[in-house]
Amino acid sequence: MFVVPLIERKRDGGTLTPEEWSALIAAYTAGEVPDYQMSALLMAVLWRGLERAELAALTDAMLASGSRLTFDGWDTRRVDKHSTGGVGDKVSLVLAPLVAACGVAVPMISGRGLGHTGGTLDKLEAIPGFRTGLTLAEAKSQVQQLGCAMLGQSPEVAPADRKLYALRDVTATVEAIPLIAASIMSKKLAEGLTALVLDVKRGSGAFLPSLDQGLELAQTMIALGEDRGCSTVALLTAMDRPLGRACGNGLETEEAIMALRGEGPPDLMEVTYALGVEMLLAAGVEKSSAKARTKLENALGSGLAAEKFERIIEAQGGNPAIVEDPAVLPQAQAVEIFEAPETGVVTRVDPRLIGRTVVAMGGGRQRVEDTIDPAVGFVITVKPGDKIVAGEPIASVYARDAAGISLGCQALADAITIGDRLREKPLPLVSHRVSNAGVEPLGREPGGRRKG
Amino acid sequence: MFVVPLIERKRDGGTLTPEEWSALIAAYTAGEVPDYQMSALLMAVLWRGLERAELAALTDAMLASGSRLTFDGWDTRRVDKHSTGGVGDKVSLVLAPLVAACGVAVPMISGRGLGHTGGTLDKLEAIPGFRTGLTLAEAKSQVQQLGCAMLGQSPEVAPADRKLYALRDVTATVEAIPLIAASIMSKKLAEGLTALVLDVKRGSGAFLPSLDQGLELAQTMIALGEDRGCSTVALLTAMDRPLGRACGNGLETEEAIMALRGEGPPDLMEVTYALGVEMLLAAGVEKSSAKARTKLENALGSGLAAEKFERIIEAQGGNPAIVEDPAVLPQAQAVEIFEAPETGVVTRVDPRLIGRTVVAMGGGRQRVEDTIDPAVGFVITVKPGDKIVAGEPIASVYARDAAGISLGCQALADAITIGDRLREKPLPLVSHRVSNAGVEPLGREPGGRRKG
Repeated sequence: MFVVPLIERKRDGGTLTPEEWSALIAAYTAGEVPDYQMSALLMAVLWRGLERAELAALTDAMLASGSRLTFDGWDTRRVDKHSTGGVGDKVSLVLAPLVAACGVAVPMISGRGLGHTGGTLDKLEAIPGFRTGLTLAEAKSQVQQLGCAMLGQSPEVAPADRKLYALRDVTATVEAIPLIAASIMSKKLAEGLTALVLDVKRGSGAFLPSLDQGLELAQTMIALGEDRGCSTVALLTAMDRPLGRACGNGLETEEAIMALRGEGPPDLMEVTYALGVEMLLAAGVEKSSAKARTKLENALGSGLAAEKFERIIEAQGGNPAIVEDPAVLPQAQAVEIFEAPETGVVTRVDPRLIGRTVVAMGGGRQRVEDTIDPAVGFVITVKPGDKIVAGEPIASVYARDAAGISLGCQALADAITIGDRLREKPLPLVSHRVSNAGVEPLGREPGGRRKG
Repeated sequence: MFVVPLIERKRDGGTLTPEEWSALIAAYTAGEVPDYQMSALLMAVLWRGLERAELAALTDAMLASGSRLTFDGWDTRRVDKHSTGGVGDKVSLVLAPLVAACGVAVPMISGRGLGHTGGTLDKLEAIPGFRTGLTLAEAKSQVQQLGCAMLGQSPEVAPADRKLYALRDVTATVEAIPLIAASIMSKKLAEGLTALVLDVKRGSGAFLPSLDQGLELAQTMIALGEDRGCSTVALLTAMDRPLGRACGNGLETEEAIMALRGEGPPDLMEVTYALGVEMLLAAGVEKSSAKARTKLENALGSGLAAEKFERIIEAQGGNPAIVEDPAVLPQAQAVEIFEAPETGVVTRVDPRLIGRTVVAMGGGRQRVEDTIDPAVGFVITVKPGDKIVAGEPIASVYARDAAGISLGCQALADAITIGDRLREKPLPLVSHRVSNAGVEPLGREPGGRRKG
């Protein structure tokens, strides 16, 4: 395949035909196009962007490079949620069993932690024995029996995306909205969904912090989904501070279990319910947001959602006893309480610094081959706007040793800013709903600004 | 070496420090930075450009990757000419012996044909036995004895440039002015020059056709040369039609020999003299353009220049008899006269089509491993503006066989446009002189436009 003219055309602001994208991705996946040509093309895409037809062709080619789940003839609606990634974001662990408990099938293929953010797979693997490496055949069977399977992207699914993602990661070509959208949608469309709900994070802890970027990404993914027969909506949610209290894989799994048992922190529950409502509406099991919300609350309050999670854990080889007793999860060797250094108002909890420190403490990967320590991390019990008194416990550090405790305490001292008053209002937890019909603002933007 | 942050910074419009460029090029040359990272960075450079200090650091790092000619203690001035490449451009073969015959040393490292353009090395190698693969030690010795050596870029010279150039060629990152400038200057500065004269081609047959691009490239290279103690000037010359009459390696060598014997076509001689005058002025052997021109004309008219070429050929293992009898050069198996298809005025001779057809006929490389047939090509005896009569011979095709003749005749029919009058005035042969002091227009731009 003669690739140079394609790179030249994109470099000069032109477009590639759908047939060219299809042939290129097939040849790249087959090893017939070298990485050095693909990386030059990816940088040109970052520069020039992709037209709608190009993006569709790229996504289709990535999807076509692998296998996909099919549920032909099965009339249960299948809906998944995807988050663009944040710190403390354990929503999937609560939401998947909760929605499945409401009669909607959730075939959820998730990813691992990336950069400063955590990943659903790593959190699930904190559960002793839990196996995320299901084949598509196993996943299909489990979805049809239990209504939910939670697995990783197997080599069967979108191998072109795996190869492209690894290349983008080492060539500074991750941050391109069309490439992000194609990567996400090529995996989600392989799940055989009837509908998809996107959680697009915004704020300093998100990969794309600005509202404009978040909206563009949401609209790009919605167009891709809708054009392929998968109803797609997005909620823009706050990632200017960690979500919930726990940050670190095992600690987040514990918090998710507490949430399924009705003891989740308010911000985590608000985001989970908002996304769950969209999933039930998209599945058509309820007609109004209020009824959908009630159905979710009942599934949670009745213990059905927690029981669903037990069944999923059991089916995937994990120890279901953790739902009754989260102490079965791996426990950190060293724990230290962090006290408020002064009296005042919490003005900021920096999500990136918290996320990066979890990685540095051993709770994430600095290299692909690193193993994760699921026990390390933070529980931070304050939010921006909270009044605190010097000496009051406001967080805990969970670490492998004294060095980790020291690293964690220093990060908390830097990440939690205290002042006399809140200078910048935190972002609304759920600020916009985006669908094929347009953008609907839900929350009031801080300071009256419409762009964050 | 951790390259991703450097790619990110350039991608986002930032600059790399001189130390970063230096370390990066050293690591890339040593094979410690993979091609896929370098190609992404090169595309980002094409997008964002390089600041002056970055370009200087890149050029220095490329120069420092290899060996260079040194002439410490030898007080003969050393001046070379570099052309950005065109069709029919055999100026170097005339100019190097001519200027050397005037007492200026010319250590000339040249390149091979590239795309639709020819290369000096390929033309020299049309001479039976001629060896272009001199070591730097051999070249130095020959320059000191004869005043001139004409050689290729040996593996000793700027290996970083060789490796980068090969990568740029297959990743559509050739057409970046700073990268072109760094590539040229890293080789020219390795020649141990006191001055350098650049022939920057413009018009449809040039790699950078527009006047603006040509001026930018000239000014970029001049800044690089001057900052490194090498006086540098540039002439912008016409490449909207082939230069001279012959196109094809052996045919061009023959035309160069005829030029050294006083029988060169006027356009070739005008460009050769203009560049030669600049070389003599830069060497300080004459104080005025008029005197320099007279000196060159005398060196040519007296036979000294032709004799110098004989000596160079002899020293480099070639058959010097070709200067007396160009029929010693390889001759084509098939020759066909091309007659004017109609009466009228020649409105255009398309240099790219002519150059590409020479390659297609076997006179250039389509792949690196191709061998060149030096005998094939064209002699085109008409120029835009010439009046012709139907049936009049206006060109000859030299080919390996009937298929080549057919290809050549078709190309001539397409490349030579005939009309009732000249609609667009050809570019002035030498249109601008560029130096550290600025841009001096020399010719009148066609149609009164100042941008071509």
